[in-house]
Amino acid sequence: MGSLSTNTFSPLDPNGFTNDSKMVIDFIADYYKNIENNPVQSQVKPGYLLSQLPDTAPYCQESLEDVLKDVTDSIIPGLTHWQSPNFFAYFQANASTAGFVGEMLCTGLNVVGFNWIASPAATELESIVMDWMGKMLKLPSTFLFSGNGGGVLHGSTCEAIVCTLVAARDETLRMIGAENITKLVVYASDQTHSTLLKGVKLVGIPSSNFRCLSTSFSSEFSLSPQALEDAIENDIKAGFVPLFLCATVGTTACGAVDPVMDLGKIARKYNLWFHIDAAYAGSACICPEFRHYLDGVELADSLSMNPHKWLLTNMDCCCLWVKQPRLLIESLSSDAEFLRNNASESSDVVDYKDWQIALSRRFRALKLWIVIRRHGLANLMCHIRSDVNLAKRFESLVAKDSRFEVVVRRRFSLVCFRLKHNDECQGLGIEP
Amino acid sequence: MGSLSTNTFSPLDPNGFTNDSKMVIDFIADYYKNIENNPVQSQVKPGYLLSQLPDTAPYCQESLEDVLKDVTDSIIPGLTHWQSPNFFAYFQANASTAGFVGEMLCTGLNVVGFNWIASPAATELESIVMDWMGKMLKLPSTFLFSGNGGGVLHGSTCEAIVCTLVAARDETLRMIGAENITKLVVYASDQTHSTLLKGVKLVGIPSSNFRCLSTSFSSEFSLSPQALEDAIENDIKAGFVPLFLCATVGTTACGAVDPVMDLGKIARKYNLWFHIDAAYAGSACICPEFRHYLDGVELADSLSMNPHKWLLTNMDCCCLWVKQPRLLIESLSSDAEFLRNNASESSDVVDYKDWQIALSRRFRALKLWIVIRRHGLANLMCHIRSDVNLAKRFESLVAKDSRFEVVVRRRFSLVCFRLKHNDECQGLGIEP
Repeated sequence: MGSLSTNTFSPLDPNGFTNDSKMVIDFIADYYKNIENNPVQSQVKPGYLLSQLPDTAPYCQESLEDVLKDVTDSIIPGLTHWQSPNFFAYFQANASTAGFVGEMLCTGLNVVGFNWIASPAATELESIVMDWMGKMLKLPSTFLFSGNGGGVLHGSTCEAIVCTLVAARDETLRMIGAENITKLVVYASDQTHSTLLKGVKLVGIPSSNFRCLSTSFSSEFSLSPQALEDAIENDIKAGFVPLFLCATVGTTACGAVDPVMDLGKIARKYNLWFHIDAAYAGSACICPEFRHYLDGVELADSLSMNPHKWLLTNMDCCCLWVKQPRLLIESLSSDAEFLRNNASESSDVVDYKDWQIALSRRFRALKLWIVIRRHGLANLMCHIRSDVNLAKRFESLVAKDSRFEVVVRRRFSLVCFRLKHNDECQGLGIEP
Repeated sequence: MGSLSTNTFSPLDPNGFTNDSKMVIDFIADYYKNIENNPVQSQVKPGYLLSQLPDTAPYCQESLEDVLKDVTDSIIPGLTHWQSPNFFAYFQANASTAGFVGEMLCTGLNVVGFNWIASPAATELESIVMDWMGKMLKLPSTFLFSGNGGGVLHGSTCEAIVCTLVAARDETLRMIGAENITKLVVYASDQTHSTLLKGVKLVGIPSSNFRCLSTSFSSEFSLSPQALEDAIENDIKAGFVPLFLCATVGTTACGAVDPVMDLGKIARKYNLWFHIDAAYAGSACICPEFRHYLDGVELADSLSMNPHKWLLTNMDCCCLWVKQPRLLIESLSSDAEFLRNNASESSDVVDYKDWQIALSRRFRALKLWIVIRRHGLANLMCHIRSDVNLAKRFESLVAKDSRFEVVVRRRFSLVCFRLKHNDECQGLGIEP
């Protein structure tokens, strides 16, 4: 029931911290040991939890044992187990011990690194680890701090897209006037992640100005440079202002890869902001045999990829690199009295609050730094290759089975297959 | 040096997980025990870390001991110690064991709860705990799921502001046409957090349409209803469209409180979206003696407050409540093929991806749920009162000291004081 005396209320007592935390470590380790005993997808019905928990907060404190019992009884049955070896949707089993302890340090230190002075290590480690990651991907030096570009850690691709859209939008509106925002046009393929259209609307560009260019089976669902150029020419004739092109390396639905080099040339010809979304497949590009998918990246203005998808980094971790940080800063800086300090005014430091949507930010760099160090580039490449080899093996099993067919050529670890329209399907009792 | 064999590479082996995690727990506990030995503000110079770390990622894995040694030698000296008892800037020492173990469970389970089906417990616990928190603040039932409103956990106030701005913007543009985006006007006081202007620009409203209304010492830096109404009338006469009003309960610089009730009446008269930013002082409103600062909240469309500022919740945790979730969803929903499922189409469930900027989302509700349960409302109120009493005591010490003066009346735990312009200041050798 707990004491209400302020003398004994010590919410961060180091001994209590150690005991409680180790109890939860054991709890999570048991969860991992037994994860395959759970159905991968939760079997609960909508609203199941309302009947299991009180509808108001407790007045007195409750024990950690009681909380963990409720996690076991009420929360775990309502989870879809993303870390289960039997989970094959989206980006599975990407947690790692290294990612976990990185998050623990971030949470434990609990610094709020909005600007350099608020915790210099948070800023400087992020800049260093973004250069590490950029070199692992063999990005041109123009994307690295060492080459006057730079990288930042966001929570998600959505945030990276919004920030680059805003930077591109404002650069153009400074030339043509704010009232022309409804003339700006954004281009991508119909395979592009839905976050792009969401971002376009969010920054005030009408959704009717989003050109969702068709792809086809014959081009393996990649964006056609000719279709892009035709669309741009049409828009210019109609009085629109082409603004932004998003290419994807490894689309969500089928792992398609847009032709970065050819699209980049068109972007440069028409002066579009060129963003490469490599959220999923970017991780594979640390392996030399996959790096060619990024050929042409030197023509891009920005690139994002998510170690939280396929590089053993727990949520959330999205890397964004830009060639001209100045353009992000011009759109996203804030200049409140309570944030001013000598270091910022000297311009010798990075203030990451001006590279993102929020002011507050967690010390995410610790997590990525520890993931890279605890695994090393060698093991990270092994991890990618192991997943790709498993996918290859599955693809070959599908190819041998007359009931199924592979729909799109596999490039990474994603295999798109379906039931065939034939008599054998009937035997499965499933409508193809 | 580590093995490169895929047979021994097991990044989430439960035994390795337990050993490494407990080593880090001990490391963090030692950090807390010795935190007062560190200077609160880091003494490093810009660029200090570059010379201490390699400029490329390691090829082979490194030991956790080596990583933690680098944290000790290179990271901790570069931290500003937000959890130090000697840190008095911003929102200090807000981490708690409960917040930490909540984050651990979130990170360990590592589910990505973008929609209900992706982990029903993540969605349902968030809805339940947002109703708990809403009841702790005695919000009108119209903000609760049980009253057809609802709440969502964001990472920061900035995100809450952007999402409500977009919902308000789109509702109005649906009536007056997208081309009129440059006519929309947003109102707030000159004490309002800089995130509002940043959000205004981000959603495509020109910064010249942000009315930063002057406040004064005589009104204790609160927004004047008369000044607001005058500004609205002027804008209407000039052909602008008043859109959004942000009131603050507990401003960043001096803890000012805008008159919610009177401002709310004006917002209703002119049909503005009325948002209340109670990021810091909202936490105090769980105590009956502070709740009156929210009187008039029934006139608002949305309210946000941050348990990560003053309610013992580690970063990041921002509560946003809205009366009409439909308006958020109309602006922020995405409808990709790979997200469709029966539960979403039945409309029986909440899909939080449509209440926020990003698609991906962490299971933050665990953290807030555990913070509330492990402390209980009683201890949380004690915590607020203890901080306020400390501030009162400090204020009385300042008042007794002829060298200093209190600048603005203290309402919560923030004391604004300064050196007086008098002879005694000379004795300190400081220019006031």
